[in-house]
Amino acid sequence: MAPVTNGRVLFNSYLAEGYPEPGKTIVYDTSETIDPDTVSLNGGFLLKTLDYSVDPYMRGRMRPPTAKSYAPPYTIGEPIPSYGVAVVVRSEHPEVKVGNYIYGFLPLQNYVVKSNLEGLQILENPNNLPLSTFLGVLGMPGKTAFMAWREYASAKKGETVFVSTSAGPVGSLVIQIAKLEGLKVIGSAGSDEKVQFMKEIGADVAFNYKTTKTEEILEKEGPIDIYWDNVGGETLEAAIDAARLNARFIECGMISAYNSGYSFPIRNFFQIIGKSLTFHGFVVGRLTAKWDAEFYKTIPPLVASGQIKHKEHVFNGLESAGAAILAVQKGENKGKAIVHAADV
Amino acid sequence: MAPVTNGRVLFNSYLAEGYPEPGKTIVYDTSETIDPDTVSLNGGFLLKTLDYSVDPYMRGRMRPPTAKSYAPPYTIGEPIPSYGVAVVVRSEHPEVKVGNYIYGFLPLQNYVVKSNLEGLQILENPNNLPLSTFLGVLGMPGKTAFMAWREYASAKKGETVFVSTSAGPVGSLVIQIAKLEGLKVIGSAGSDEKVQFMKEIGADVAFNYKTTKTEEILEKEGPIDIYWDNVGGETLEAAIDAARLNARFIECGMISAYNSGYSFPIRNFFQIIGKSLTFHGFVVGRLTAKWDAEFYKTIPPLVASGQIKHKEHVFNGLESAGAAILAVQKGENKGKAIVHAADV
Repeated sequence: MAPVTNGRVLFNSYLAEGYPEPGKTIVYDTSETIDPDTVSLNGGFLLKTLDYSVDPYMRGRMRPPTAKSYAPPYTIGEPIPSYGVAVVVRSEHPEVKVGNYIYGFLPLQNYVVKSNLEGLQILENPNNLPLSTFLGVLGMPGKTAFMAWREYASAKKGETVFVSTSAGPVGSLVIQIAKLEGLKVIGSAGSDEKVQFMKEIGADVAFNYKTTKTEEILEKEGPIDIYWDNVGGETLEAAIDAARLNARFIECGMISAYNSGYSFPIRNFFQIIGKSLTFHGFVVGRLTAKWDAEFYKTIPPLVASGQIKHKEHVFNGLESAGAAILAVQKGENKGKAIVHAADV
Repeated sequence: MAPVTNGRVLFNSYLAEGYPEPGKTIVYDTSETIDPDTVSLNGGFLLKTLDYSVDPYMRGRMRPPTAKSYAPPYTIGEPIPSYGVAVVVRSEHPEVKVGNYIYGFLPLQNYVVKSNLEGLQILENPNNLPLSTFLGVLGMPGKTAFMAWREYASAKKGETVFVSTSAGPVGSLVIQIAKLEGLKVIGSAGSDEKVQFMKEIGADVAFNYKTTKTEEILEKEGPIDIYWDNVGGETLEAAIDAARLNARFIECGMISAYNSGYSFPIRNFFQIIGKSLTFHGFVVGRLTAKWDAEFYKTIPPLVASGQIKHKEHVFNGLESAGAAILAVQKGENKGKAIVHAADV
């Protein structure tokens, strides 16, 4: 095989505020080539990448390094990393076989040489599910929903939960877990299509927050016992106003803050006292050791049987990664955002 | 005995914003008289009130009834109620004897006829402590500190706790409990005299937030594992900035909000996610059933032996109640604020 283009999605410039710009913040680069047949492995293995996950948190890693964040900023001039699935095309590593599927944090580029399995795992797929499933409902977003619900929700049958951006890969699993446990579910999202999807997966109340006021829905359908927060900002304030005594707030994300300089103030936080509210912030990586085994035991069979539904929005080719990242920040994706780099 | 003046502290007008005004918001009234010897008891008992507690939360009950709050507003024209200690001067009630001391929620007036013990308890005082002690370190403030610490702190020896308004009756007990459990304690208060008191009771770092910047102290002495919040506002923001991974926030009060329309925004709340923070709001009344017995077993002996120190600021006479309430809102009291209505 002759050398081929090794396409890469490079991080090109820091972004203090606003949305990332494809072509400026994120650049697709074709200047490198690789010969898959001859590239040196030095005891490692060569991966051909197949699918990548695109997630809201990525915006945080585009911030200038002076801003404090739980994740370090991306490195300028380097490929952006994300959760991905790849197939092994050559291997000198004793544990890694040609044809194995690998899951883990991988740079967005067509071919990657790895010297070991650090941060990666060989994918088991006993239910023979599509590989991209392992980036969504069975990947980091699915783990986020399952693990934090188990850890923080203290859910009781008959309680009411409000889930924001609940047509997304995290929120839609939260809805379905809450319904399996007998709760009343109120879900919000930013389009009528997403509202339709929320209804299909069982939300008792589903509304488009762009055309209906969150506070009015919560006034009518609340009070709420649990708020699953993916957005922060005014939606969080509305949830605080609508919270019942002893309500639990699961703080999963604040996408409303990511592109507005993280300055959106919460003006009614004092209610935490009178209502005896509890707020749990978390990052899923810190829950994985405790809940990983139960997750893989519980969720894949429910996905395989169709009891748990999910939806993907596939962006084709690494050259579409910038558009995918922007769409996720703007909430324009119509399911778990996947960048499909190549077929097997 | 001829009729005597039954002095009363009346709530006179709602207050949306700003500090309560003695003579306007709160009025001392001498228009009623009572004859302690002949007043009808109808099977109840007559109390002569001795001491009252004045606390920060009282401001919340002066808000107009349209504002949502965990406590109902005071009733205009009626005496303000508060925790108090009284002595029984006459009784037709089988369980209540003349000379018994009674603790509980009582209207601020010299003489009170009660038909039953609802909301009241006969005070046991085996250590023969001054009666006002049961309004401070052994009363609602002491219970607040002890019970919420047990319920929410998850404190580990060697951790660092920051306590705001920590010369007050709640904060000063938090400091002493934390020191008994082997934590490093940072305390803030609004005068050099209070700083001196914090040092006397064991704070490792004590500073006057009016002359030293909270964020600078926390930058130097933190990060913090626990924040005991009595003030909210910018101090809460500084604590969020200084929080370590997995820090716990015990939200006890937000005095900075009480007199500024509850509008102070929290601008860095998004850090809850990256740092995996937990915030617990509470009202002590909801913890009492669980922790009351352990409280009375643990704290009174430590107070009697002098191992736990406390400080009172006594305002003499019911006519000084308005001044006492205002002083507490402004942070000008020099210890647990007590209104001394009468000697036994």
